[in-house]
Amino acid sequence: MNIHVPGKGGKPQNGDIPVGERPGSRKVYASGELFPDIRVPFREVAVHPSADEPPVTIYDPSGPYTDPHAVIDIEQGLPRPREAWILARGGVEEVAEPRQVKPEDNGFAAGKHLAPQFMAKRPIYKAKAGAPVTQLEFARAGKITAEMEYVAIRENLRREQTAPCVRDGESFGAEIPDFVTPEFVRQEVARGRAVIPANINHGELEPMAIGRNFLVKINANIGNSAVLSSVADEVDKLVWSTRWGADTVMDLSTGRNIHNIRDWIIRNSPVPIGTVPIYQALEKVNGVAEDLNWEVFRDTLIEQAEQGVDYFTIHAGVRLPFVPLTAKRVTGIVSRGGSIMAKWCLAHHRESFLYEHFEDICEIMRAYDVSFSLGDGLRPGSIADANDEAQFAELRTLGELTKVAWKHGCQVMIEGPGHVAMHKIKANMDEQLKHCHEAPFYTLGPLTTDIAPGYDHITSAIGAAMIGWFGTAMLCYVTPKEHLGLPDREDVKQGVIAYKIAAHAADLAKGHPGARMWDDALSRARFQFRWEDQFNLGLDPETAREYHDESLPKEAHKTAHFCSMCGPKFCSMKISQEVRDFAAGMAPNEIELGMSAMSDKFKEMGSEIDVVVKDL
Amino acid sequence: MNIHVPGKGGKPQNGDIPVGERPGSRKVYASGELFPDIRVPFREVAVHPSADEPPVTIYDPSGPYTDPHAVIDIEQGLPRPREAWILARGGVEEVAEPRQVKPEDNGFAAGKHLAPQFMAKRPIYKAKAGAPVTQLEFARAGKITAEMEYVAIRENLRREQTAPCVRDGESFGAEIPDFVTPEFVRQEVARGRAVIPANINHGELEPMAIGRNFLVKINANIGNSAVLSSVADEVDKLVWSTRWGADTVMDLSTGRNIHNIRDWIIRNSPVPIGTVPIYQALEKVNGVAEDLNWEVFRDTLIEQAEQGVDYFTIHAGVRLPFVPLTAKRVTGIVSRGGSIMAKWCLAHHRESFLYEHFEDICEIMRAYDVSFSLGDGLRPGSIADANDEAQFAELRTLGELTKVAWKHGCQVMIEGPGHVAMHKIKANMDEQLKHCHEAPFYTLGPLTTDIAPGYDHITSAIGAAMIGWFGTAMLCYVTPKEHLGLPDREDVKQGVIAYKIAAHAADLAKGHPGARMWDDALSRARFQFRWEDQFNLGLDPETAREYHDESLPKEAHKTAHFCSMCGPKFCSMKISQEVRDFAAGMAPNEIELGMSAMSDKFKEMGSEIDVVVKDL
Repeated sequence: MNIHVPGKGGKPQNGDIPVGERPGSRKVYASGELFPDIRVPFREVAVHPSADEPPVTIYDPSGPYTDPHAVIDIEQGLPRPREAWILARGGVEEVAEPRQVKPEDNGFAAGKHLAPQFMAKRPIYKAKAGAPVTQLEFARAGKITAEMEYVAIRENLRREQTAPCVRDGESFGAEIPDFVTPEFVRQEVARGRAVIPANINHGELEPMAIGRNFLVKINANIGNSAVLSSVADEVDKLVWSTRWGADTVMDLSTGRNIHNIRDWIIRNSPVPIGTVPIYQALEKVNGVAEDLNWEVFRDTLIEQAEQGVDYFTIHAGVRLPFVPLTAKRVTGIVSRGGSIMAKWCLAHHRESFLYEHFEDICEIMRAYDVSFSLGDGLRPGSIADANDEAQFAELRTLGELTKVAWKHGCQVMIEGPGHVAMHKIKANMDEQLKHCHEAPFYTLGPLTTDIAPGYDHITSAIGAAMIGWFGTAMLCYVTPKEHLGLPDREDVKQGVIAYKIAAHAADLAKGHPGARMWDDALSRARFQFRWEDQFNLGLDPETAREYHDESLPKEAHKTAHFCSMCGPKFCSMKISQEVRDFAAGMAPNEIELGMSAMSDKFKEMGSEIDVVVKDL
Repeated sequence: MNIHVPGKGGKPQNGDIPVGERPGSRKVYASGELFPDIRVPFREVAVHPSADEPPVTIYDPSGPYTDPHAVIDIEQGLPRPREAWILARGGVEEVAEPRQVKPEDNGFAAGKHLAPQFMAKRPIYKAKAGAPVTQLEFARAGKITAEMEYVAIRENLRREQTAPCVRDGESFGAEIPDFVTPEFVRQEVARGRAVIPANINHGELEPMAIGRNFLVKINANIGNSAVLSSVADEVDKLVWSTRWGADTVMDLSTGRNIHNIRDWIIRNSPVPIGTVPIYQALEKVNGVAEDLNWEVFRDTLIEQAEQGVDYFTIHAGVRLPFVPLTAKRVTGIVSRGGSIMAKWCLAHHRESFLYEHFEDICEIMRAYDVSFSLGDGLRPGSIADANDEAQFAELRTLGELTKVAWKHGCQVMIEGPGHVAMHKIKANMDEQLKHCHEAPFYTLGPLTTDIAPGYDHITSAIGAAMIGWFGTAMLCYVTPKEHLGLPDREDVKQGVIAYKIAAHAADLAKGHPGARMWDDALSRARFQFRWEDQFNLGLDPETAREYHDESLPKEAHKTAHFCSMCGPKFCSMKISQEVRDFAAGMAPNEIELGMSAMSDKFKEMGSEIDVVVKDL
């Protein structure tokens, strides 16, 4: 593989852009039937021949970076296969006079402080007047897009090729099919139960779906701060987080250079990119919230939509009358976007311009198929504030706005909390389903206790797993640095892995028919002492191997039929094999006879015998 | 503080025994009313005077090691205040001829391979014939013991001194009182809903309770392996795990020297020590399971009971007829004790000697007040095997054995799984409550997915938090090394912290009246930018501070009213304060007027107005 990182902007601080296949994994592609050109990626983990099992197919959001045949050149960006699909179905036109980059887009950074521009040229597209352009519009019109077939193949994890999995779960009313068809994807998108965040200007995108009837997804946040980061650093963070399993990435950059850095991110991103446009709008007015206005915000939306951002967090539910509802909270308003809008509303003593201009926002977002992520600006920032009137008043408003956005043909998801003790989590899902018309829910955690700064990836993985089980479609990760500082590379990895655990635990509990194959394959490897298979099938093979090697470093021990817990002399797994061999030699009636004989023994014990014998 | 660690046996590999107060914490004691001599420890965290708040009282299992006035000399062991309580209430006598240490007790280790003996002398006690000796027997007889008052004070966290906490939770039938009285503890012990593991030979113990109507507790496992560890290393592991919050510690040592090392552990332990006696019995028969017999096991029980072990895991529910039920499992029998007994049953084709001698076991354990932890030898080792017939057949048997043990005056808790997907967790608790007569449940995790070796402290913290909420009384930790190797010091810390999170999240969700004070105090500190208070109130102040300092290292930033996430220019917490000031200046009817005026605005949006206005 060739890797080319730009000379300007410096080398990544933490090594080069991470490329190459994951340990024990092979990058494979499936093609479509309706759209034979699409190439849907999977990560395939082959197990030892002694197992006599097919390889395990794992969902793979890591893009071309894990393809050994790909040529990576971040100055050119990724290939743009989606552009052809978009042009083929029509309804879009090239923008004759795209918006020009203005000094304020990069926070007035200049000279050596200005991050390099992304130079490779590309056309910028927009909807033609009157023509359908969003996935929602096509779905409603009965048209299956290439993105929909792509997503259908991706969600199946090639399970049509393996033995059917037993449906075992409690899905709380989700309607996950045995196999996902392109038509099923279309229906889910048409009724707003799923979104495919896919800006027509993000030709590099590998489409994915977010919805209650699909695999639970996770988002990782990245972003430069006021301190100058190199563009290669930012691309590194993007690639790093998707390598570990992030399904979408939000660029929450603030400060200078955010326009230029965003270009580098999107051009090199195989996953949907989300942003919070109000952050950049605030930079444009020098950080003074009360100086924000519709014109600056509108300009920012167009700027980012033309760049190819796939979804925007819009805090249009932070309405003036809700702001005083937060006054008695322990932690007030903790959402950055929420507090910006609250400050604006209070300073002007008038209704939020996001709320008043909501239909204008819809028109802009529709023209590029930017999906809404309706922000929960009033989410609770502590256990004490969970599920209060401010939070739920905003949630109901988001439900109203969902209908408005749908009317305009826009795709919508709804953001959720935050900090919520376990007994209050389900109410969040129930209220969201009730008021937001089944638009996908996208939650931050929630954190289930406030007492563990430094470990909020764990406090929140607990809540995330539960709310994912209850029906949340995407889980926004929390890193160990939450509340304390900016996450570094290791924090990003820890956050992504904690959330992959939460998402998969949720899929298992929902009874997703593609989920348990993975656990079962790993557990069989564990039982059969196929150590290499156990490492490779894990979320983090490198760490699993390292932990094993600390106790039993020798290469021979990777094939040994014992582990460091019991040692070579005694092994519970080995005994289990003997049990299996023993039982295989027993006729079923022998087992019954054995149990009947034993029941006599119970009688000598003198208590509750009948219950036991009956229960057996 | 003076610390004395033995010259023999070497220094701990990872530094000296950790002593001294935790950051920002003060060790305080409360005395009893019925028993004025008892000194119940708490960790008190004072907050900055500007907060004008009382200090936060935190449950403290760390023993004298965090008391700056204590003299620690591990060759002498901890002080033994409990000895006087035990002698005062009578019913015990000194054992005239205690069991002598035999070569096989230490795995025939000799010469330089033999760990040093613990030399300080102490009497060994046993019940007098016919007299009550266990906490259960005293409770049934209507007698409140010193241990019961100790536990009552400890569980209240001095909340009688602070404003009453709002009861907010879903306890699934638990009956947690507003305040815990000694009489309440007595009642809970009498009906078997709580245990106070407290061997009469563990005079160093600071008593604690395990029960559904008390704070959720956590256990940490330690233990040397076949490799020789120094005794100071083992004491270090004990002190280290309780410093981070372990409520009980199980010594799962195997191999040589386990008798001598156990002495050092118990003599230096303020928390209950649990063991799995079958492990040592197996060592005595050279690791050959089929050579086990009742005599060896009986001798081991007496050996460990005289040393002062507080609870024994006894796998008496692994019955011969259940063994074939595991044959078709993906991961067979994964419990070490379970597989030892399965092997024995198969080899002899007869019923387990633990089951057949269960009443003999009860008689021995009663005489020292060793509590039962009825082992789940057939727990599932993978998601695929959860809640199967083997597991539940054993659980029902444990319910039978509970009644037998209670009949003999023994305290009992029940061990539980293991690996269980989220949707099957509640059934475990429900079945346990149904079949085990409300004896406390003590679970390992459960792990909610199998796909994350290296991160099973997280996969299992999810399940532990949930089952703790449902009613499990104690959660046995899992470290990141689970399935891969032996935990080191850092792994122990990570496991304990993940489980403190799970236990506290469970207390919050149950609505424990002492739980939320802690979260609220920390969240107020966070909102008010009292960084030092936020660190000190967290589970791991050192790590929280370190993470903060990576982004904002200067001392001045610890008092700054901003953090690295938003920076000094814009701060959502600061805006919340402005909202608060603003709302304080508004009359309630102004808020209503504002909301009514806004509802006119809704009408312009043209859709679903009525719903919104009504919901407001």
